[in-house]
Amino acid sequence: MQILVVGSVAFDTVKTPFGEAKEALGGSATYFASSASFFAPVSVVAVVGEDFPLDDLEYLKAREVDLSGLERRPGRTFRWQGEYGFDLNEAKTLDTQLNVFAEFHPRLPESYREREVVFLANIDPDLQREVLTQVLSPRLVAADTMNFWIQGKPEALRETLKHVQVLLINDAEVRMLAQEPNLVRAARKILTWGPRTLVIKRGEYGALSFSDGGWFAAPALPLENVHDPTGAGDAFAGGFLGFLASTRNFEEANFRRAVIMGSVMASFAVESFSLRRLEHLTYPEIEARYRQFKALAHFEDL
Amino acid sequence: MQILVVGSVAFDTVKTPFGEAKEALGGSATYFASSASFFAPVSVVAVVGEDFPLDDLEYLKAREVDLSGLERRPGRTFRWQGEYGFDLNEAKTLDTQLNVFAEFHPRLPESYREREVVFLANIDPDLQREVLTQVLSPRLVAADTMNFWIQGKPEALRETLKHVQVLLINDAEVRMLAQEPNLVRAARKILTWGPRTLVIKRGEYGALSFSDGGWFAAPALPLENVHDPTGAGDAFAGGFLGFLASTRNFEEANFRRAVIMGSVMASFAVESFSLRRLEHLTYPEIEARYRQFKALAHFEDL
Repeated sequence: MQILVVGSVAFDTVKTPFGEAKEALGGSATYFASSASFFAPVSVVAVVGEDFPLDDLEYLKAREVDLSGLERRPGRTFRWQGEYGFDLNEAKTLDTQLNVFAEFHPRLPESYREREVVFLANIDPDLQREVLTQVLSPRLVAADTMNFWIQGKPEALRETLKHVQVLLINDAEVRMLAQEPNLVRAARKILTWGPRTLVIKRGEYGALSFSDGGWFAAPALPLENVHDPTGAGDAFAGGFLGFLASTRNFEEANFRRAVIMGSVMASFAVESFSLRRLEHLTYPEIEARYRQFKALAHFEDL
Repeated sequence: MQILVVGSVAFDTVKTPFGEAKEALGGSATYFASSASFFAPVSVVAVVGEDFPLDDLEYLKAREVDLSGLERRPGRTFRWQGEYGFDLNEAKTLDTQLNVFAEFHPRLPESYREREVVFLANIDPDLQREVLTQVLSPRLVAADTMNFWIQGKPEALRETLKHVQVLLINDAEVRMLAQEPNLVRAARKILTWGPRTLVIKRGEYGALSFSDGGWFAAPALPLENVHDPTGAGDAFAGGFLGFLASTRNFEEANFRRAVIMGSVMASFAVESFSLRRLEHLTYPEIEARYRQFKALAHFEDL
């Protein structure tokens, strides 16, 4: 199955206790596509300004990433600037410049309308729906969102959620969205709003997924070298959906494998600034790390 | 194998967003013994004041807990008062009254000196060693500690650690003890100081164990009803060591089962205030919850 992603392609300026990157390649669609493209063909819907060096995305083309839906418009590319402390679990946003993203209303290339798997990255929920309505008959729709939309556009977000099968957000967002401090009760509430599966990303603490089929707890690999958590959530979504698209199997056991594959891709993403690690990654490294996750989490019956 | 525990028997006054308890039965040795006694005989070393109603510990005697090392001395029993916010991960201590614990220098009953498994709960590291030297030939020594001793008595603690095989502490304490923000590097450092296994308790995020045999990540069960996290760490230690003592198997695969059993017992402990849940628990409930952990964490190879 082929995947469609709508999200940002951006310049990130990031500082962590382990270094910094200035105006480096970033954006949710970029991280997602870099990750998902190891598993399935990806079509990108996004916008960049005249200042964007398209050559920076050449490595994606080599992995069958279709960039015909990447618009180039007059003006400057989206820019984000943030900082992380030692715990690396939460970014402090220092500056956001939407630039060409502010007026973005994507028209999907005709070929994109046939895509079966869709990832609506963390953008305005109205925009997420604008894209989704242009897809003819999606089999699996997954979405991300954040506190900014949960608080700022709650009705639009609830409307989008009606059309989403998998919602991928973090703990704090789950509690905020459901307005319920207990995670189990919060998850149960959100599962009545549209999504059949809720994947809760918890950074260095792993991921939890909730669905009618049960709960699944995936560990995070303890890493000796974490440099920059930016994009980890989108790399996770890329591994998760890429794996599901490539295996065409939406059963519970395969969803669990997909959550692990998401965790695998996130674990690589944080090992370097920007997309460097995902750019130079190989599939055998991915398989080896999946086995590391298995060894990490395995225990025997009594 | 029989287990020896030295720790506190106390009155706790606790407030959480889900209720409160005043002067309720608590203390590290109490939580530990209540948990470990489902698996193996436990001998308690602790001190209480004249105000302590020994009848409150009757349920422990029914489970082969030996209280002959529980001194009763003139004065008041140890008291702790604390409060938790919604995240329940960290207690805010409001008041600590050591009372009879201040001058505690335990003399072990003769029969206790033969014990093979020892748990040194979170007390002064000098006191931990005082107890340990009275045990003839321990096969497995585990210890807990906290920021107060890590910062206040670092040399005494390092001395105690030389004689400890398993150290059970939380993430923040691992980083503080090793003076290293990265958890993997911190763990590796501590493993050169004596302990062969480091079990890191992470509350609602589960537990991580590090040893030469590898790393193991245990999930926490997402709970719908968490009332009071007090004593969860000691209940964890009780399940962990109780299971190891009862199976007499210290191999890596069995250590992993023991970490899960610790998590199982902690998951029960937090479901009520004080010892209520552990007091009325049954072994079939423990086995059923172990299976729930297995179902929660299981995933297939690629």
